[in-house]
Amino acid sequence: MHSSPFTVTTLGTGAALPARGRYPTAQLVNVHDSYYLIDCGEGTQERMRMAGINFQRIGHIFISHLHGDHYLGLMGLISSMHLMGRQTELHIYGPPDLKAIIDLQLRASGTWLRYPMHFHALVPESGQVVHTDEHVSVTGLALRHRVPCTGFVFRETAGLRLLRTDRLHEIPQFKRALVKQGEDLVFPDGKRLSNAELTLDPLPPRSYAYCSDTAYEPALLPYVKGVDLLYHEATFTTAMIDRAKETMHSTAAQAAQLASDAGVGQLLLGHFSSRYKNADVLLQEALPIFPRTLLSNEGGLFQVERRD
Amino acid sequence: MHSSPFTVTTLGTGAALPARGRYPTAQLVNVHDSYYLIDCGEGTQERMRMAGINFQRIGHIFISHLHGDHYLGLMGLISSMHLMGRQTELHIYGPPDLKAIIDLQLRASGTWLRYPMHFHALVPESGQVVHTDEHVSVTGLALRHRVPCTGFVFRETAGLRLLRTDRLHEIPQFKRALVKQGEDLVFPDGKRLSNAELTLDPLPPRSYAYCSDTAYEPALLPYVKGVDLLYHEATFTTAMIDRAKETMHSTAAQAAQLASDAGVGQLLLGHFSSRYKNADVLLQEALPIFPRTLLSNEGGLFQVERRD
Repeated sequence: MHSSPFTVTTLGTGAALPARGRYPTAQLVNVHDSYYLIDCGEGTQERMRMAGINFQRIGHIFISHLHGDHYLGLMGLISSMHLMGRQTELHIYGPPDLKAIIDLQLRASGTWLRYPMHFHALVPESGQVVHTDEHVSVTGLALRHRVPCTGFVFRETAGLRLLRTDRLHEIPQFKRALVKQGEDLVFPDGKRLSNAELTLDPLPPRSYAYCSDTAYEPALLPYVKGVDLLYHEATFTTAMIDRAKETMHSTAAQAAQLASDAGVGQLLLGHFSSRYKNADVLLQEALPIFPRTLLSNEGGLFQVERRD
Repeated sequence: MHSSPFTVTTLGTGAALPARGRYPTAQLVNVHDSYYLIDCGEGTQERMRMAGINFQRIGHIFISHLHGDHYLGLMGLISSMHLMGRQTELHIYGPPDLKAIIDLQLRASGTWLRYPMHFHALVPESGQVVHTDEHVSVTGLALRHRVPCTGFVFRETAGLRLLRTDRLHEIPQFKRALVKQGEDLVFPDGKRLSNAELTLDPLPPRSYAYCSDTAYEPALLPYVKGVDLLYHEATFTTAMIDRAKETMHSTAAQAAQLASDAGVGQLLLGHFSSRYKNADVLLQEALPIFPRTLLSNEGGLFQVERRD
């Protein structure tokens, strides 16, 4: 359980206007080998092919908002999944209008999907549970943008309790699964060993928060506090603060300030304006404020590592 | 006029399911340095960037039908044109549902285009005039596919009459433009030289026909007869004829047969099924039936040359 993967692959790092070598936003989140896609800009299916990701394994797609650079690749992906013979169900979470957009285009193309597609309408609300399964719980973040925009916190499901190695010899093999789940050990003669003396707490669950697109929003702090990895958009440098306010985006300094105030493990920057040919200028602005800052890159794989 | 460009750039040669290295359908038609886009699959704006095409110069976009591989790149292109400050008008021709698809997505993203966009609804009808301007006339072709699908014939506007070099000395410089336009030459003293004796017929206008997607459709013959360049889809080889019929696509042999029966100048094949890693198998099938056959390729530039 504890060596199970929890990774984020950043498939695109660009903002609304594509730039050579940058692609629009999409991220593949792998939690315990279960695949989740966040946002799906134009060309995402090709980016996944390039990155060697089998997109048929994606069971859940989360769309933050309806600006084109975050969702225009979705219809193509839905269609390719269909044409490649998918039969397993697909869950899509996004703004209510997204359902109308999908339905209209399926109808216009005369497509009857071979697999069940379930749409879940999202209204931005911090702390709201969006999805849970055996690997992860996903909660919403009310981002601050020009259109309704939801961020996401992925928190892995708490692991099983750890058997104390010094008491392992007292626990019969066939009882270990139950003890890991927190049960006391009861012997046929009625003797009882409490779970507390046989086990240790599981390692704390790892967490990943996704904030794109958003103006600087301190109201997010209680919801991203202490996450192991925070992805935050950094469209502009501070020199463009007026443009950032006007378009409701963030500067790299603001992203770093939020990361610092929230005490996160690491900060991952993305959604770079096409005016920056090299994103290093954004990294350099963030580092003095929050040293554990990383730049996302096309196809880059980032581990969600437990804070020390 | 006669050395004015008339070219077709094939931006994608794939069919519905993307394959590595192939992109969905889009073609840039350049008539006398006026730009027209036919179809616009996902990623077309990036393909144009790669091919060095300034897409802001496109004034007219023609969408044949609403299968995703022919139009899913349109919203991204419309959006990029907007973000890059376009102010000149854009005309879009396509199936009626396309307008609803565009409007819904503009509304959902809160976008108010800075440039005028005019939508022209198309119902497939061979011979119907779709668009005319000073460079070209575009007429429709009723293709035969699973959803309503319109092909297009681009015919350059007839050139001016050619002045006979052996009579040039008789025509005053300031009268030449009028004579080229077909007027007689009248001198102040009332003497008249007829246009017929001063000029030769202009070279016949060049023409390009676009047929994708379609089953083999001999009813197209009168409308594509004698065009200088015929683009025809060739999704399958004859070995897959049943699949071709079922999906209402064509084989390479059928495309070549139509080209032969129509007596066109050259045939250009495209829309290759992803099952053919190398499209040469399609070319080899067509050549014995119609020798002047070419394969389209990603970013390939093809001249529309007058038949000898």
